[in-house]
Formats: sequence, structure tokens, C-alpha cells
Amino acid sequence: MEFSETVQQRHSIKSYQPDKEISDAELKELMQEVVLSPSSFNLQHWTFISVRDTEIKGKIKDAAWGQEQVGTCSVLLVICGKLNAHEDAADIYQGVDQGIQDKVLPLIKGFYDGKDQLQRDESIRSASLAAMTLMLAAQNRGWATVPMIGFDPEAVSQLVNLKSNFIPVMLMAIGFKKEEPRPRSYRRPIEEVVKINTLDGPGLMG
Amino acid sequence: MEFSETVQQRHSIKSYQPDKEISDAELKELMQEVVLSPSSFNLQHWTFISVRDTEIKGKIKDAAWGQEQVGTCSVLLVICGKLNAHEDAADIYQGVDQGIQDKVLPLIKGFYDGKDQLQRDESIRSASLAAMTLMLAAQNRGWATVPMIGFDPEAVSQLVNLKSNFIPVMLMAIGFKKEEPRPRSYRRPIEEVVKINTLDGPGLMG
Repeated sequence: MEFSETVQQRHSIKSYQPDKEISDAELKELMQEVVLSPSSFNLQHWTFISVRDTEIKGKIKDAAWGQEQVGTCSVLLVICGKLNAHEDAADIYQGVDQGIQDKVLPLIKGFYDGKDQLQRDESIRSASLAAMTLMLAAQNRGWATVPMIGFDPEAVSQLVNLKSNFIPVMLMAIGFKKEEPRPRSYRRPIEEVVKINTLDGPGLMG
Repeated sequence: MEFSETVQQRHSIKSYQPDKEISDAELKELMQEVVLSPSSFNLQHWTFISVRDTEIKGKIKDAAWGQEQVGTCSVLLVICGKLNAHEDAADIYQGVDQGIQDKVLPLIKGFYDGKDQLQRDESIRSASLAAMTLMLAAQNRGWATVPMIGFDPEAVSQLVNLKSNFIPVMLMAIGFKKEEPRPRSYRRPIEEVVKINTLDGPGLMG
């Protein structure tokens, strides 16, 4: 599909056809596009837990304000961020020139080590970039999605066995929509969203 | 351009043609796609500061490890998140049925009020979703981008007059690439990135 059409057609969808399936092979193809998203120092802080197990899905639904789509979507993803992803840098840069490794690896260590807030920020940032690619790439395949932040992070972490170095960044339902989306919700006008040179500068008129 | 082609072609580009311009009208068209990104409760925590002023750009470059692309890109965006975006909920839901407003507005207040970490997380999450749409929508127009996190957030905040209720989430250079990108950097394999049902479950094979 044309890129602009994909962006225009994507809506958050909460009503799914529960009998429709997305195979692991299809999910894998989707993910091959998702991982092309950028991340700081290419650390790829993201990990996706694909939940199809009905029991786990049900318990996550309970921990997510009972939202219907958690149960009815074809695949529920728990999109996670790895707080200490910077510790994987040596693995990630393995194939890179030694000269670059010698420069970048200490830089990464110095940038992240001991900085808890930055590590959390980065996990959320990278996982969110990947999540947006995922929503668009799913739309391009005719699949609907909805990102969710309304859940108990500790309960969800327990249900999918997250260790303390991972956080759940958002839930994502993927599936086949049951009905057409409602008209798009209000968007703030561009002159309010884009400011020229400083936050108190004029709005972008174009 | 086809969606998949757009995703495949996007690379982070650090080398730009400094004489090439992107007009405000073109930037506005781009942003009209960007704001179609989703955000929790549709709060649209994002604000974009479009920096073309050479002096401010130069100072931001100094605060961003001297990265060349800050100076040579056509438009430098400081992508910001509004920590207290939930306080705008009444404005955003103005056009919505009163019954929905009565339900959603107190929910939003209860969800965010007094929760500093959540407010920060949400600002980063929403701004990052929009940032990914921006990179792809720019690619679709033949423009290159690079997201940057290597900068002094306090210095940049001062330079673009951010108030204390805004944080800079990332810098984004947009422009015309000077040379073809290097081969894509390493991506972790899908079986490592996607786990089945729990974090310690098997990897997705497809």
C-alpha cells in the first residue's frame, strides 16, 4: 500500500474478530520490518512477547482494566524495553571494525552506566519507535492494532516473567477489525504543535 | 512510495547537503501525517520546535557533541514532550459527547495526577511514536533523517526556551542526504527479539 494511505488508514481499533488468526510466519515477516527501526547506538532495547496462550491473555486482560481487545485480538504483544541494553553493546558491535568498537564501546558505557533514569527513558524511547513501525507495518498488511498503556505494569511483568532489567513499555493488540473505525479523534492544529525556533515562538503556518 | 519500500529505504543519515531547503509549507504537510500518530487518551504529548535560525542551530550543535548534521540539515527539530499534557484533556475532549467527557476526564486526571515518573514516561512514549512516523513520512518524501539523543538536555531546553513542564525527547535532523547510506547495521535476529508467551519462552521461529 502507498505509505500515505497506510498512515491515513491506521486507527486504534478496539473491536476484533476473535476467530481470525495471524500465523507465526506472518508475525515474523511483520517483525522483520519492525526491527529496521532506529535506536540509540543501535542498542535495540526492544523485546516483544507474543502472547497467544488463552490463560495468560485472560490474566493480562484482568491486569489491563478488563479491556476486551486484550482477549479478542489475534496476537497480543507485550512490548518491553531492556534497561541495561547497553551491556549488550559488545555483542551488537561484534562485526564492526575494531577501530570503531574501540571508540564506541567506552562511549556507550560512559553514557549509560549507573544512569537509571536515562536507561528507563531509552528503553521507552526505542520500544516506542519500534511500536510505531509495527502499527504502520501491520496496517499495510490489513491488520488492525491498538497500543495500550492502561495496565498494571507489575502484574503484567509477573505474568510474562520479566526480570528486573526489563519493563513493559506498552501492550499492543494485533488482529482483524470487526467494524470500521469511528471518525478520527481530534488532532491539535499544526500551528500549535510546531513552533518556530523556540517554544514561545510563532506556530508553523506553512 | 510503497510502505515496505519506505521502511526498507530509511536509514539514519548523518551527512547532508547544507544548501538544500525544505519549506515551511512542505514541513507542514509532513507534520499533518505525523500528528496522525496515536497517543494515550489522545493527549498528543508532542510539540516540535523547528529550528532554522543559524545561531540557535550552532548553539544546539555545541550542546550536542558537535554533531555535524545538527548544522547541515535543512530543518532541525527539537521533539519535546509535555509532562502535564493531561491537563489539556478538557480542551482535547471539547468536541466529544458530554457523557464520554464525564467518564474520561476524571479517569485521565486520576491516571496522571501527581505521578511524575508516569508523566515523563508518557511524554517520551508519545513523542517517540510521533518521531517514528516522522522519519518514515520524511523518507516517503525523499528526505533523510537522523534521530539523536546525544545532547545536553538542560542546555538544549534553555536554547529553545522550554518551560519546566516540557522535556526534550530527541533531536531530529531532516534534510537531503549527501551520499548513499552505509550498509544497514546489525539487527538482532527475530528469534531473539520475539519470545513466545513469556520472556523465558522460546523465540519466534515462524
